[in-house]
Amino acid sequence: MKLILNSGYLPQGFLAAGLAAGLKRRGRRDLGLLYSRVPCAAAALFTSSRIQAAPLLVSRRHLGRGKIRALIVNSGNANCMTGVKGIRAAQAMASALAAAVRLSPSQVLVASTGIIGRQLPVERIIRAVPKLADALCERGLSRMAEAIRTTDTFSKEVSVSLPLGGRRVTVSGIAKGAGMIAPRMRLATMLSFIVTDAAIAQGALKKALAQAVADSFNAITVDGCMSTNDTVAALANGEAGNRMITAGSRDYSKFLKALREVTSALARMIVKDGEGATKFITIDVKRAASDAEAEELAFGVANSALFKTAMFGSNPNWGRIAAALGSIPARLDWQKMTIALNGAAVFRKGRPVALKKRGILKGRNIDVLIDLAQGRGAKRVWTSDLSYGYVRINAEYN
Amino acid sequence: MKLILNSGYLPQGFLAAGLAAGLKRRGRRDLGLLYSRVPCAAAALFTSSRIQAAPLLVSRRHLGRGKIRALIVNSGNANCMTGVKGIRAAQAMASALAAAVRLSPSQVLVASTGIIGRQLPVERIIRAVPKLADALCERGLSRMAEAIRTTDTFSKEVSVSLPLGGRRVTVSGIAKGAGMIAPRMRLATMLSFIVTDAAIAQGALKKALAQAVADSFNAITVDGCMSTNDTVAALANGEAGNRMITAGSRDYSKFLKALREVTSALARMIVKDGEGATKFITIDVKRAASDAEAEELAFGVANSALFKTAMFGSNPNWGRIAAALGSIPARLDWQKMTIALNGAAVFRKGRPVALKKRGILKGRNIDVLIDLAQGRGAKRVWTSDLSYGYVRINAEYN
Repeated sequence: MKLILNSGYLPQGFLAAGLAAGLKRRGRRDLGLLYSRVPCAAAALFTSSRIQAAPLLVSRRHLGRGKIRALIVNSGNANCMTGVKGIRAAQAMASALAAAVRLSPSQVLVASTGIIGRQLPVERIIRAVPKLADALCERGLSRMAEAIRTTDTFSKEVSVSLPLGGRRVTVSGIAKGAGMIAPRMRLATMLSFIVTDAAIAQGALKKALAQAVADSFNAITVDGCMSTNDTVAALANGEAGNRMITAGSRDYSKFLKALREVTSALARMIVKDGEGATKFITIDVKRAASDAEAEELAFGVANSALFKTAMFGSNPNWGRIAAALGSIPARLDWQKMTIALNGAAVFRKGRPVALKKRGILKGRNIDVLIDLAQGRGAKRVWTSDLSYGYVRINAEYN
Repeated sequence: MKLILNSGYLPQGFLAAGLAAGLKRRGRRDLGLLYSRVPCAAAALFTSSRIQAAPLLVSRRHLGRGKIRALIVNSGNANCMTGVKGIRAAQAMASALAAAVRLSPSQVLVASTGIIGRQLPVERIIRAVPKLADALCERGLSRMAEAIRTTDTFSKEVSVSLPLGGRRVTVSGIAKGAGMIAPRMRLATMLSFIVTDAAIAQGALKKALAQAVADSFNAITVDGCMSTNDTVAALANGEAGNRMITAGSRDYSKFLKALREVTSALARMIVKDGEGATKFITIDVKRAASDAEAEELAFGVANSALFKTAMFGSNPNWGRIAAALGSIPARLDWQKMTIALNGAAVFRKGRPVALKKRGILKGRNIDVLIDLAQGRGAKRVWTSDLSYGYVRINAEYN
């Protein structure tokens, strides 16, 4: 199973497109479309924020109605906190697309990303929809990936292909970062769309998506800020012709593995493209009292501004890691604890260890290992550093 | 009741000193001492971090033994995660001071602030103690306030004086900021020492300190990071000769008001001196479902990196406030909500309001009002922005 980056490649029976509808400046792509020739099994996870953007309400409703055929997404405007008008705008996006490609509006999912609290200029989207539908093609995924970018510095698109149930099955996904990323909170996620030609039962797809998201999009944080628009959706159209995958079967395990490859790669790309990121940091908490505590501890470190700025400075100041760990209500005995940075112990079983080499954190990748010697709990999370670039991007945004 | 800043003024019967013992570079003051001619009623609150620095363990033990007479504090080294050796070093500080001023070691409180995980060069402290004791004087508080500074850009010292129980009573306090500040978590605090010549029962002093801290040190955040060394201690020596204050009396209310003036002023000074701070931000959450939810919501906004960077950019992007509020598990209906910045509504009862003036956030002070129209819960918190300066200070620290 080989992961292909930016292939532009879609699973069988899917088409995609992306173009500029005038929501973003300078003629940049801001409207994307995914389309399946046949109805799909669909699953989606949304932000757990108490404030949910209009397209999330519309998509939830459509998901409950039956088999999905298409997904339309815009960047440049979140269509959030925009009231009844915003909900009508999200519905109008679905209806305009449905009319252009001859579907029922309830077969269309809708997503948005961008600034909160401004009415969506939906007439520009409606005007662009016929052209968008005309542009649908088998290699359109890259253009769609480009259309969902906001502060992202590169497009995020991956594919894997594998033999499954007698046929070759493909899973492709796209995602956008790069700020307001702390998707883990109660299964919240950022924007990611995954398509596969696998034949899979709707229940099995839902289960697989939740499992894959737990170790990928829910294991990353850039700035600890949860979004109002986080959405991850998966569509499976069965065009590969494999045996139907059901939950718990051997094929399910294989499919889950492929899906995890895709979501994990996309999640890591989001962190690599985190706003202002100069470091890619992997935090492994091991031997915590439980998996849940391991997760709390790992995110406690990952979201600490003092830890993140130290990493930006390539500074092996492990006291900041310890302080972040100590602030989490979890079982912890620092006198048993070990902390290692890029493989070198800086604190071993309660004792500081003098570093022999200087500059061990100078490279782009930083691995932090925290061994608590408490129990069997473990968690890996990925995060970025806090740099001048992050401040610049976010002080000047909008 | 008038608040005096940087008076160097101590209540009757107290002496203080501060000098350079060689823990910090360039001959800066790093060792401070408070001393009372008579035994004091004492109360203290410590960090709720799972990792507690050695001096906290020693001070807790001494507090349980009887009346406190002195407090010794160093900056430049936190004496945290330093094992048995660290505890012995903290005890040695107390013993050296006790010998120099003829007390029992258990009458001495100890505190430290600075880098975590390095052994305290306690011999330098022991060597400096006789000189420190000799330097004790009635106007020594400013030098002590200077000695506890780390990344602070100015000393934090205030006094109030008031008629109470037939006499004039003084309450003076010092504090240090400026990073790793999120004291509110379960009554954690940063370093602050408060002295008064009021005669007050130990139980009443404890109660008053907890009440005063709740609205001051526990209502601020700079970077959302809790420290391993947070300590606030209050000493009352009764030298004013007022009627003994007991909990619940009218004098208690007056004393509490004075104490609140002092803790609140110091807390705000810490935020003003927050690492890299260019803004002083007051967040008022009103009409939340409960006070507890108001507090969660207020800190949710105050600790949001996206909110803090927007404030640094003087950017009235209220969507970031809304996103932060939405991420908190509290009762919230954005369609009833109102958000105002420096008195100008930007979002009123579910509708965005166009700002008439530009640059309303250009000044140093920013007031954020969030009215949830849910219930009677309220909370005010103070915070600073997230600037290039914060990143610089913390990427280069150590």
